[in-house]
Amino acid sequence: MGKLYVVGMGPGNEKSLSLRARDALEAAERICGYTVYVDLIKPLFPEKQYHSTGMTGELERCRFCLERAEAGETLALVCSGDAGVYGMAGPVLELKPAYPGAEVEIIPGITAALSGAALLGAPLGNDFCVISLSDRLTPWAQIEKRLRKAAEGEFVLCLYNPASRHRRDHLRRACDVLLEILDPDTVCGLARQVGREGEYFEITSLKTLRDADADMFTTVFIGSARTVELAGRMVTPRGYRR
Amino acid sequence: MGKLYVVGMGPGNEKSLSLRARDALEAAERICGYTVYVDLIKPLFPEKQYHSTGMTGELERCRFCLERAEAGETLALVCSGDAGVYGMAGPVLELKPAYPGAEVEIIPGITAALSGAALLGAPLGNDFCVISLSDRLTPWAQIEKRLRKAAEGEFVLCLYNPASRHRRDHLRRACDVLLEILDPDTVCGLARQVGREGEYFEITSLKTLRDADADMFTTVFIGSARTVELAGRMVTPRGYRR
Repeated sequence: MGKLYVVGMGPGNEKSLSLRARDALEAAERICGYTVYVDLIKPLFPEKQYHSTGMTGELERCRFCLERAEAGETLALVCSGDAGVYGMAGPVLELKPAYPGAEVEIIPGITAALSGAALLGAPLGNDFCVISLSDRLTPWAQIEKRLRKAAEGEFVLCLYNPASRHRRDHLRRACDVLLEILDPDTVCGLARQVGREGEYFEITSLKTLRDADADMFTTVFIGSARTVELAGRMVTPRGYRR
Repeated sequence: MGKLYVVGMGPGNEKSLSLRARDALEAAERICGYTVYVDLIKPLFPEKQYHSTGMTGELERCRFCLERAEAGETLALVCSGDAGVYGMAGPVLELKPAYPGAEVEIIPGITAALSGAALLGAPLGNDFCVISLSDRLTPWAQIEKRLRKAAEGEFVLCLYNPASRHRRDHLRRACDVLLEILDPDTVCGLARQVGREGEYFEITSLKTLRDADADMFTTVFIGSARTVELAGRMVTPRGYRR
């Protein structure tokens, strides 16, 4: 019987793969995924067959993998970061009932909230929310509602997809919503291209974040009222008594 | 100069370590941490020196590591899951300014939200919140406020520390708060001892979760209104059009 591994590959360098993810990629005859992520994996496993599709080809990609697995092939469908957090584990499991002969295994990976946080320091040291600013699949009104509830709940916020070529101003709009509730001096952070060439991070304030240059490879962190900048790192104390 | 690696070791088995985490553990002369996690690592690196402390010895443990690193030693401070999510990266960076000669590197790991989600299916396929139910360091009123805001924001919720020996009823109290806002049939999941002996998961409803048997090695997932059970897996659709 064939098998489909849905693999969270972490930020994209070899060292961030779990051993379990590496084993799955080694076992796969074919590696599939979004072009940008497949190109990160190719140099590590040059002898494999590859199948990549563009940004909006998610369901086609999942169906291709499930069909092949049902036909007896062993494949890996790679996701940047984790397999499930805005990843392909969801659509694969939604489509799976139509492919009863395909075995599926989900392999978690280090999502951008974790890899970006480690670069910045420890912003996620207390309760946090993860919100995508992409309105391709979620109406903006719902995104805005979640931003408000997260800010009112005094969570740390981690924002995925703060911008793309077609959505230049989403981060600014999100900051404007948050500025109605949070202090403009709230400690914030940006992490970009984590674990890849061009890795970069910056600690800033909510009022300045509004005009920051973010792209689709940037993850944004909005601190809680307790988050501080300490010796160049962003830290949200858990509350251990000194 | 000494160096302190704060290492997220994932759920605790060798295969869930990232290669970067494994390299750091191999480089360390001494491995430190909470007794339960140190005991998981010991069989993998039997030749190392070890230093473990009990549940409430967090700051003592961090100071010990920073002192040793400043004295020139290379150490790893291990955390279950991620280094930063309720982990030791925060307190280490809070104490760090007093140890200018100690270099610190934070290595992220697969936190229980991700490893538990992969076991259950794909509950975190859309925006989510992570909340700890431990009131050891956060007042219960604040936890309750966050539960309400997360439910009102239609987030998926992932709950850490749903119970301990001294807090048997926190999950029940949390469910009672959520039941004021969410449908009693909301799809929920439990993952226990992920990646370890006794690994277990269960998909249930919010009204039944209330009486579930959770312990400190359990992670709880509360779906959004869109979360479904599909062929025995818990899935929160991202919204790709079929």
